[in-house]
Amino acid sequence: METDAKMPEGDEVENTDSSASETLKTINGGNSSTKLDEEIRHDLELAAVYVSDAQYNRNIFFDTSPQGVRLYMLYNHKAMLVLVYLLIIVNLGLAVFEDPALVPLPIWATMVAELICLSAFTGRLIHYAKVIPAKKFWKDAKNICIMVIILLTLVDMIIYGSMKAAGLYGVRWSRVLRPLFLVNITEGRQLRRAFRSIRNALPQIFYVFLLFIFTVLMFSLMALKLFGKRGLLTNNGSPYFTDYLQIVFDLYVLVTTANSPDVMMPAYNANLFFAIFFIVYILINTYIFMSVFLAVVYNNYKKYLKEEVRQLVRAKRYKMVRAFRVLQETLGEEPTVSQSRWNQLVRMVQPNISNAHRELLWSVSDTDRKGHIGKMAFVQLADILNIQVITMKSRPHPLQTWQPGLYDSAPSRFIRRIVQHKVFVYTYDLIILVNAVFIGLDEENPLISNVEWLFLGLYILEILLKLYTFEPRGFFAKHQFWNWFDTIIIISALIATIINSSLSSAGSSRQVLDIVFILRILRLIRVMDSIQRFRTIINTLIKIGPTILTFGQLILVVYYIFAMVGMELFKGRVKFFESGSTDPQHEFCGNPLLKGTDFAELNYCRNNFNDIISSFILLLELTVVNQWHDILYETSLGAHARIFFVLFHVVVVIIIINIFVAFVLEAFFVEYTVAKSHLQTSLEKKIEELELGVQQDDMDNNLVESMETSENDLGSNEAGKGKPSLMFRIASKRYKTVDGLLQKIFEADLGPEDIIEEEDIENPPQSEANIQNPVYDAI
Amino acid sequence: METDAKMPEGDEVENTDSSASETLKTINGGNSSTKLDEEIRHDLELAAVYVSDAQYNRNIFFDTSPQGVRLYMLYNHKAMLVLVYLLIIVNLGLAVFEDPALVPLPIWATMVAELICLSAFTGRLIHYAKVIPAKKFWKDAKNICIMVIILLTLVDMIIYGSMKAAGLYGVRWSRVLRPLFLVNITEGRQLRRAFRSIRNALPQIFYVFLLFIFTVLMFSLMALKLFGKRGLLTNNGSPYFTDYLQIVFDLYVLVTTANSPDVMMPAYNANLFFAIFFIVYILINTYIFMSVFLAVVYNNYKKYLKEEVRQLVRAKRYKMVRAFRVLQETLGEEPTVSQSRWNQLVRMVQPNISNAHRELLWSVSDTDRKGHIGKMAFVQLADILNIQVITMKSRPHPLQTWQPGLYDSAPSRFIRRIVQHKVFVYTYDLIILVNAVFIGLDEENPLISNVEWLFLGLYILEILLKLYTFEPRGFFAKHQFWNWFDTIIIISALIATIINSSLSSAGSSRQVLDIVFILRILRLIRVMDSIQRFRTIINTLIKIGPTILTFGQLILVVYYIFAMVGMELFKGRVKFFESGSTDPQHEFCGNPLLKGTDFAELNYCRNNFNDIISSFILLLELTVVNQWHDILYETSLGAHARIFFVLFHVVVVIIIINIFVAFVLEAFFVEYTVAKSHLQTSLEKKIEELELGVQQDDMDNNLVESMETSENDLGSNEAGKGKPSLMFRIASKRYKTVDGLLQKIFEADLGPEDIIEEEDIENPPQSEANIQNPVYDAI
Repeated sequence: METDAKMPEGDEVENTDSSASETLKTINGGNSSTKLDEEIRHDLELAAVYVSDAQYNRNIFFDTSPQGVRLYMLYNHKAMLVLVYLLIIVNLGLAVFEDPALVPLPIWATMVAELICLSAFTGRLIHYAKVIPAKKFWKDAKNICIMVIILLTLVDMIIYGSMKAAGLYGVRWSRVLRPLFLVNITEGRQLRRAFRSIRNALPQIFYVFLLFIFTVLMFSLMALKLFGKRGLLTNNGSPYFTDYLQIVFDLYVLVTTANSPDVMMPAYNANLFFAIFFIVYILINTYIFMSVFLAVVYNNYKKYLKEEVRQLVRAKRYKMVRAFRVLQETLGEEPTVSQSRWNQLVRMVQPNISNAHRELLWSVSDTDRKGHIGKMAFVQLADILNIQVITMKSRPHPLQTWQPGLYDSAPSRFIRRIVQHKVFVYTYDLIILVNAVFIGLDEENPLISNVEWLFLGLYILEILLKLYTFEPRGFFAKHQFWNWFDTIIIISALIATIINSSLSSAGSSRQVLDIVFILRILRLIRVMDSIQRFRTIINTLIKIGPTILTFGQLILVVYYIFAMVGMELFKGRVKFFESGSTDPQHEFCGNPLLKGTDFAELNYCRNNFNDIISSFILLLELTVVNQWHDILYETSLGAHARIFFVLFHVVVVIIIINIFVAFVLEAFFVEYTVAKSHLQTSLEKKIEELELGVQQDDMDNNLVESMETSENDLGSNEAGKGKPSLMFRIASKRYKTVDGLLQKIFEADLGPEDIIEEEDIENPPQSEANIQNPVYDAI
Repeated sequence: METDAKMPEGDEVENTDSSASETLKTINGGNSSTKLDEEIRHDLELAAVYVSDAQYNRNIFFDTSPQGVRLYMLYNHKAMLVLVYLLIIVNLGLAVFEDPALVPLPIWATMVAELICLSAFTGRLIHYAKVIPAKKFWKDAKNICIMVIILLTLVDMIIYGSMKAAGLYGVRWSRVLRPLFLVNITEGRQLRRAFRSIRNALPQIFYVFLLFIFTVLMFSLMALKLFGKRGLLTNNGSPYFTDYLQIVFDLYVLVTTANSPDVMMPAYNANLFFAIFFIVYILINTYIFMSVFLAVVYNNYKKYLKEEVRQLVRAKRYKMVRAFRVLQETLGEEPTVSQSRWNQLVRMVQPNISNAHRELLWSVSDTDRKGHIGKMAFVQLADILNIQVITMKSRPHPLQTWQPGLYDSAPSRFIRRIVQHKVFVYTYDLIILVNAVFIGLDEENPLISNVEWLFLGLYILEILLKLYTFEPRGFFAKHQFWNWFDTIIIISALIATIINSSLSSAGSSRQVLDIVFILRILRLIRVMDSIQRFRTIINTLIKIGPTILTFGQLILVVYYIFAMVGMELFKGRVKFFESGSTDPQHEFCGNPLLKGTDFAELNYCRNNFNDIISSFILLLELTVVNQWHDILYETSLGAHARIFFVLFHVVVVIIIINIFVAFVLEAFFVEYTVAKSHLQTSLEKKIEELELGVQQDDMDNNLVESMETSENDLGSNEAGKGKPSLMFRIASKRYKTVDGLLQKIFEADLGPEDIIEEEDIENPPQSEANIQNPVYDAI
């Protein structure tokens, strides 16, 4: 063993795994059998941690002593992670209760909650500091960042508390820092990566932006000179294009198309040919410059992400080589790992893996059936573990074992044949469409509400028939998304409808009815799944879902910061009155400055910064961009509101939305072009060799191969005839992790030097730092 | 000669080129010297046509007899092309004068003009029919298309004319077909290609669109059920979300963000949590689906264009091989072309090429200095002719030859050193910025208008100083874009200012003043060019300019068709009154139905279909999308207006704008990634070898290498010291043709099978049709 493992001390090693006691050559041999067992166990644990790190792309340089490894496993325990994320959500959620609050709570309550969160984060940080060497800990910017945030927050809390105690006005400025916990937490890798790729793209974006601003300023100057002296009036009677700064703002808004064509109308009404000015402006600034922004963001995103994923793959292979070193035995001339050790390792890494699945993976790795594998084959382990293999047991229907005579009788077989026929699916598609029409009709008509019961009955009948025909455990297997979807929707609809009808005799509840409606309409989605072309598109969209979550976090961080600043700056400027209000202030949102403005006239009073939820919705409206110049009720907000709103526009619309679009583009191109990855194909080949595969439907794989296809021949014992009782299928295109998708995206560009990286890894100490820490730096 | 050339008949061959008479081995030898000369001349002409076709990617299968070649050369003559395009513009422009007219003309006048255009198009078609074989002519869809359009137009004109004569109402429906002339004309290759790539992308777009519409319908149903029964009111007091079709339309408009957040406000005001419905809707339909549309369009665009460019390259090489066959001589074992024939050919293809440039190209082709080149080297000719080489003659300043003593005196040298110094550039940048501030100030102040004279004087001084320092012919060389720009702007400004001041003593003219202002502000663009980073971005934008023109044509075709239909459907529904009008109808645009609508209130009366210009501006506003639901003044237009407007949105915004964005993205990626192409590099190497290169400035080529860099050392005799009197520089990154850029885009993907395609071409007859006709089919 080349690891820096300390000698195991005789402590609480439980020898639960009997197969771990088999003899094997350890390089630094122990004397007593217990010691040997302990060592073997430690080696396995260490290797399992390496494999698991490689599998999930963790890049933490942990202490390899037995205690270190245990501590590290505890650090990575799921419960710990869930707790940390929960506390981050609680910490962020405190904004709901703090002034300006949606649900006001006393200051001490929110303070105590925040203190609990902060101490938990501190605890987590201390745990992390114990896991990794002290030098590494202090070199890592994200740890420093967390410490600084905690300290600043404490200082702010003390100041704010004492200000409040003294009856003075205080600002909780440290709330802006809260989302940074989400970014700097160890597991926020994807998020940090997204921020890094934004940061890397910034210089180029900046130059294009400068040029863009220059163009806007120049056109504004031209507009001032062309229109300023003509005495034109805007629609609300104010002078048109006479103030330079106002023109700059109006033309900036025009780039976002929000005030088109209003801003043009006075000039256009005065002279037909003034429209040319605006056409040229829109062409250059809206179409060309915005495309250039997308191009710059997309290009940088691709470039830097490629580099990062390359480092990730390198780090993964390095970790797998370390795991191999820990477990290796020198049987012949080459170091190898035996099947038994490999089995122990896989069982430790993924405790709930089935024996059949594990043996399949082994047969893929050990292609020559030698009983042991070399380094190259071992290194694949992290990748093949990440390939989702669906194990399907072809077992008889429970009814068949219970009542074989009845189940195999002619009428029963007829029913089952009908259910498996395509016409059955088409009939139900038709029923759903007819149902859609009935949903559209007035539900207060008693006839129609009774017809709803009929439809509900039909849907329940469908599920029962399918359960009769198909083996239930196969029908409700993990990956049968649409079966689960159907069943849950139908049962919920049944329950909600029953509740609703029992209530309506007493007095109808609007909320329950709403739920009933939504459930009824969600049933319609099923039709989309019946059409192959649609299904392929939907599957692609579902696949990019997890990564959209990363962007969700990104947006959350940016929104939260802007919401906090916005609330401090603009809270209470506008009041919202319920629509029944008789308050005379109702008309101008409680702010006399807004009298007669578009803001008040369009009834935008609820678009305000008075609480965190309203702020988020307002920021979303600003992201959609339209009417943002009206939402920017500047008369009541002051000039700094413009800076705030334009800054938001630049950050969110120009940068983040473009990165989002870039990601969707890239993901779709990958789906369109890249074939299945090499490893998946080798696994598939093996499955075919072993004749364990389930035939795929003969659908065209135009976009993506669907994975919910074999619904009809799944689990039915007719389909299972003549086939082995156990079948595998690869959920080939669904990625367990976001990293998987990213690696897939850039796989085509990853050269062979990344595959055969081992020679460099043979003597790693000095390169270790480079390999271990590619994603270490915080934002 | 393997061509199917007919024996030359003794006709008007003028033997102008004396070098053409030199003896060489022709494969089918002639007897008399005259005949030989004629044949040589014909061979040269034929080869020149092939090379020119290859250079400009023309794919016309012409008759190779001497008459055929002459006819074909006439067909491709620039004057003919200009005339055809001019007549197409006239034909399209007739809409300005036809009812509903901007400038009404009698029907007979427009009819006569149209007849002239049609007969010219017919003539052109007949010419084309004479150039290519009859079979080819009738197989080509675009010829049939032109004939059908001409026939239909004539029929329509007769019907319309007789209807009008009878005093009946007639519709000029054939006007919709007019833009198809632009598409189906032989030279409209780029445009046809764009249409083809749209057509190819349509099936995939269609499925995504269906899914998108399904989603909209489902959300609309949900909205109807959730909000319909709550008795909510919109801002103008009408019931909110009670009519299904209205909801569908409102939610479709929400996808384009045009009615955000107005459409949400009533629900949001009623309950905070209803906002979730709209947020989910916007996320799915606006962000995800619109990105998917871009991805689908982009992907298809890329895929099909790649295939077409591959065919184009293949056809080009094939044509070059044919040219080689015509000229080849078998000196040794391999067929070659001698330098003298090559020279004659190049002189014929590009009559205005300089001898030095031609010799440079030869030395690139004939790397071994053998005096003749093989097929491989010859085939490059079309490509190297397309590389723009700037020939710079380093000659002394005319003042130096005229007054050497004065020009080389100490004060003169001092002035020249100052002008060449960086500080001189910075000083003028500062002057421009100060000038910008003065422009912004009130020009009616006499002080400021006098300061303007000062600035003008300073700019003129700058130009004079530069002309004093740099050699004038070098300063005003073809590629010195910014020098030309500066000089033209300054001189125009000088003239306009003089006219203006002479007029203002009599009575100021607003138009002249406008021109003065615009020219003054355009001067400011110069600052952008001084900053290297900006210059690189601008150069990229300038480079994609020609291709943006193709999209301009595409947009023109689509706009024209929609404008014609729109004018027939909606003309006269809305009247525009000048702002001073006292007509009581002024308030509601002359249409009582519009009373109190947003359309009238926002003063949108000029947004109408009353003439072609207004229609185009209206369609542009619809392309920008914002407020299109208000522009769609449905009360006065009827329900079919919605179909028209939505159709326009789908065609222009979802398809064409996305293709535009796709093109800009692709062009930028090429600029970012692809290095100089192989041929350019070999030419550059040669230039370096010959020590004729001009040193590039040591700028960073972050985006693109600029080409207006050597302004300072160009033509000045100091810089020329010790260097040869003739220098070349490659205008490497500017493409002469759009095809050049496209080929560059896909060059990276064009495999070696496209480079060494000759073996297939050795025996072409059956593959000829495939190679010759890749871009033949019309839309």
